[in-house]
Amino acid sequence: MRSSQLVFRTRREVPQDAEAASHQLLVRGGYIRRLASGVYSFLPLGYLLLERISAIVSEEFRNAEGNQVLLPALHPTEIWAATGRLAKMADVLFRVESKAGSFVLGPTHEEAVIEAIAPDLASYRDLPAMVYQLQTKFRDEPRARFGLMRTREFIMADGYTFDADQEGMRIAYMKVYRAYQRMFERLGLLAVPVEADAGSIGGDVNHEFMVASAIGEDHFAECANCGYRANIEAAVAGEFSVAEVPEIDGVTVYSTPGAPGVEIAIRALKEQGALVDDSAMLKCMVAVDDRGEPAILLIPGERTLKVPGGYTLAGEEIFGEGSIFCKGYVGPVGMRERGVKILADPSIRARAWWATGNNVDGEHVVGVRIDRDFSVDDYRNLIVVEEGDPCPRCSAQLHLVRAVEVGHTFQLGLTYSSVLPHASFVDPEGARQPYWMGCYGVGVTRLPAVIAEQFIGEGATAVAWPVEVAPFEVAVVAAGRSAQAADAAERLYQELLARGLRVLLEDRGLSFGNAMGDLELIGPPFVVIAGAKVAAEGVVEVRDRLLGTVEQVALGSCGDRVEELRKAAVPIRR
Amino acid sequence: MRSSQLVFRTRREVPQDAEAASHQLLVRGGYIRRLASGVYSFLPLGYLLLERISAIVSEEFRNAEGNQVLLPALHPTEIWAATGRLAKMADVLFRVESKAGSFVLGPTHEEAVIEAIAPDLASYRDLPAMVYQLQTKFRDEPRARFGLMRTREFIMADGYTFDADQEGMRIAYMKVYRAYQRMFERLGLLAVPVEADAGSIGGDVNHEFMVASAIGEDHFAECANCGYRANIEAAVAGEFSVAEVPEIDGVTVYSTPGAPGVEIAIRALKEQGALVDDSAMLKCMVAVDDRGEPAILLIPGERTLKVPGGYTLAGEEIFGEGSIFCKGYVGPVGMRERGVKILADPSIRARAWWATGNNVDGEHVVGVRIDRDFSVDDYRNLIVVEEGDPCPRCSAQLHLVRAVEVGHTFQLGLTYSSVLPHASFVDPEGARQPYWMGCYGVGVTRLPAVIAEQFIGEGATAVAWPVEVAPFEVAVVAAGRSAQAADAAERLYQELLARGLRVLLEDRGLSFGNAMGDLELIGPPFVVIAGAKVAAEGVVEVRDRLLGTVEQVALGSCGDRVEELRKAAVPIRR
Repeated sequence: MRSSQLVFRTRREVPQDAEAASHQLLVRGGYIRRLASGVYSFLPLGYLLLERISAIVSEEFRNAEGNQVLLPALHPTEIWAATGRLAKMADVLFRVESKAGSFVLGPTHEEAVIEAIAPDLASYRDLPAMVYQLQTKFRDEPRARFGLMRTREFIMADGYTFDADQEGMRIAYMKVYRAYQRMFERLGLLAVPVEADAGSIGGDVNHEFMVASAIGEDHFAECANCGYRANIEAAVAGEFSVAEVPEIDGVTVYSTPGAPGVEIAIRALKEQGALVDDSAMLKCMVAVDDRGEPAILLIPGERTLKVPGGYTLAGEEIFGEGSIFCKGYVGPVGMRERGVKILADPSIRARAWWATGNNVDGEHVVGVRIDRDFSVDDYRNLIVVEEGDPCPRCSAQLHLVRAVEVGHTFQLGLTYSSVLPHASFVDPEGARQPYWMGCYGVGVTRLPAVIAEQFIGEGATAVAWPVEVAPFEVAVVAAGRSAQAADAAERLYQELLARGLRVLLEDRGLSFGNAMGDLELIGPPFVVIAGAKVAAEGVVEVRDRLLGTVEQVALGSCGDRVEELRKAAVPIRR
Repeated sequence: MRSSQLVFRTRREVPQDAEAASHQLLVRGGYIRRLASGVYSFLPLGYLLLERISAIVSEEFRNAEGNQVLLPALHPTEIWAATGRLAKMADVLFRVESKAGSFVLGPTHEEAVIEAIAPDLASYRDLPAMVYQLQTKFRDEPRARFGLMRTREFIMADGYTFDADQEGMRIAYMKVYRAYQRMFERLGLLAVPVEADAGSIGGDVNHEFMVASAIGEDHFAECANCGYRANIEAAVAGEFSVAEVPEIDGVTVYSTPGAPGVEIAIRALKEQGALVDDSAMLKCMVAVDDRGEPAILLIPGERTLKVPGGYTLAGEEIFGEGSIFCKGYVGPVGMRERGVKILADPSIRARAWWATGNNVDGEHVVGVRIDRDFSVDDYRNLIVVEEGDPCPRCSAQLHLVRAVEVGHTFQLGLTYSSVLPHASFVDPEGARQPYWMGCYGVGVTRLPAVIAEQFIGEGATAVAWPVEVAPFEVAVVAAGRSAQAADAAERLYQELLARGLRVLLEDRGLSFGNAMGDLELIGPPFVVIAGAKVAAEGVVEVRDRLLGTVEQVALGSCGDRVEELRKAAVPIRR
């Protein structure tokens, strides 16, 4: 393409809301423009980038035996009600009223794909099957952020697998898992699969594909020793080493009026001479399960609670008059006998005794021991993992990494097919069986931002796109006004095009400085400059912007050399 | 592709709402499935078809120097309010409330493209520019119809041109106009450009591209003599020949109580011996202009009124007590003197005198003459054109054609840029000037239905897609269970693939009859059958389904022959 034919204009001004370097670059380079909060237009250069990314994503879904489809954005409200997600996801659903009834704008398509495809997968002979789409989704985010990173309208690539049994589902899952690894590598991303929480999608096994990034809104825990990786929401710590604590035999009650909360209580106890250190307090939170039955959740006082599935933290009303729970002074002792379930994080076993509330207003107890003074009904992972925690697999130290989610894979199992009777097939014996499903998402319109974050230069005024992704693999520009240089540039442009490369010829008659400034933002990994040496020595300059190298190459071998460099280029910058 | 890898199942049952043959075929062949009224999923085979159609449409927009973009579906309500279309199109707009304010789901993108692109076209040096997109649009149709023909969610290809002056706009318009001609020809459609009404889009000059079709919801008038073509809404009749009427000198008042309306009045007049025939009555309708001023619209009694721009028909209240308008007995005589404007269709001059209402309850007058008994303020085209009317250019007879609109091109002129101050550029003298704009639409998701209507077989159980559009250009199938036939089919499949053709190998082990039944619905224009003669004579059968021919071809030259047929195939069936 000739730059004179590209509807394109770089910008000096960058909007104030562009905090992220990728956002600044994409605006400055004329890739995107904001239409509303969390709603963006892809302009010609941005569309070329998106087209490349989409092609790679689509090819890899196809390599995983996906059949492309296109499902609608308008979903009848009923199908969302049938799975219970109309209520569950109400907060982020866009709702639309129409002459044809009420609709949800689809943020994900589990319900819709079952409606579309189940009638064609009526027999075991039709399985396994995989379909996918690249399609525009809508999600009313509480807060749009970082340009393309979190938007209200976005393109997802979403795939769905249908299998006759769990084994089939697992095979399909691994196919997509491997396709994702190739896909992200081609996209120039070092994406690591981490164990994750299923959120509103459901199912037992799932992985997020995460790219370490300064603008990540997630964290994952990583063990450099054994390779364990899990999203912070799903990560669990291993066994903590047992803390050394002063020897205390019995249990002592202290009067601590007006001292609720871990820190204040520790201070009050210390003032009274109790042998407590800052880690001595056992945090006791009251929760209720799905049926409204109360439970106490126990974690070390210094840790952050992760509320377990099936429970929600109790509100103020639980401490009302006549309650067995005493606000600020809840403790485990004697509560099980009163019908309260005791759940505890395993890490509370790493200390011989604890200080805790005495279930009486203004009283704490010190020296409480598990299995002597109280019992635990159930050990569950109740703490958010922190930097340096022991790995659950090998006990080495976990490290927390700030990261962006670029893909997610789910073994849904029977999550949807158990509630939707038509999500089923007839087996060889003539019996109806539910599908074993998987679902798979890639955030396509998020990828330009994620990739830019990895390949961006200082000050967000330059980028070198990875070769497969680049709108133009190579740009040709003449330096100076000589006819020989312009002529050489034109001939090189034609030659490189004929070699099947995506080439940009800078032909707008800009000064060399301005032309190079624009190219920094357009981001071709290779640039060929035809300058003064063309006439004098028959030599052009070839720049590899990914490696930062510059070579002088004879005009006649320039095409070969660019192709060589293009082939040798490694997409991922480690 | 191997049919075993295609997620695909033909269906015997066809939904009751599928009136159109194309709709039946697309459902039966597993191309699409209805999710809600006017909302469809494209299944794998349907997506392959849509992908081919999209590629052709996109290529031709690119050939017209279009730069592809992708604009959002969520449009802030404000930008629609700014052009007045929030009210004008309220009836079909989907509205969405969000945490980021209220949105319209875009049914067209004139406002959005100006927001997205105007800042990059700030100078005369940035012009001319053309952008286009293939994007999902939403329109709350009063009634969805004929499957993909009229839906609530659909893909449009919409292009927008920006020029510095009217001449530039016209050049851009002609480029797209010619691109449309190539595009529709490649799509296998004989699309004729007709003059049309601008509707809610605006501008002076525009053309609809229409395909004659039994399921058309539009009509256009066509003159076989001079080539004049116009949509029924825009078509005008030429000069009617003057009717022979009995000689009458004066004006006679008749008492016709209880005889409003053309037919009853004629009967009442005939009963009283008036010399009136069925064509003698002048229809007089009361309308009001945009400022509320009343006017009378005059057309021949047998014709259908087309309300002119700037006017709406008056409601019942205009005939209230003390009104100068007498319901059922309105006539032109004396009304101009009472401040009522008289508009008339030119065709009323084709008769020497008229019968009409006398502006008194229960009275008609016969013998009323233009320019003697009343004057006309303004002649306008006020009648809907009918079969046989004179052509406005050459006076030959017009013919009405039932047709489907597949594309529309508009010279918008300053329609949008005159109301949106930022739709402007700085000219060489430094002055702000509004863009001269054009806009261009193609109904992409409607095309599978329109094309199917042209290429469908009897009973809607077979189709042969035009070569450029076909999901598979050629299918290879083995007849019988012989290993030689299967082996030959496999080798031919590989060979045809290597020639760059889109090939389907039927490998599901179906009976030959079932396999051919499926192929009828999948619609490859060419089918190669490896049967008993492969082993015996080294010969396969090549069927050209567009022409209906069958040839026996030696195995070794089959690839060449298929390529020959493919190249010779003419897409349009006339």
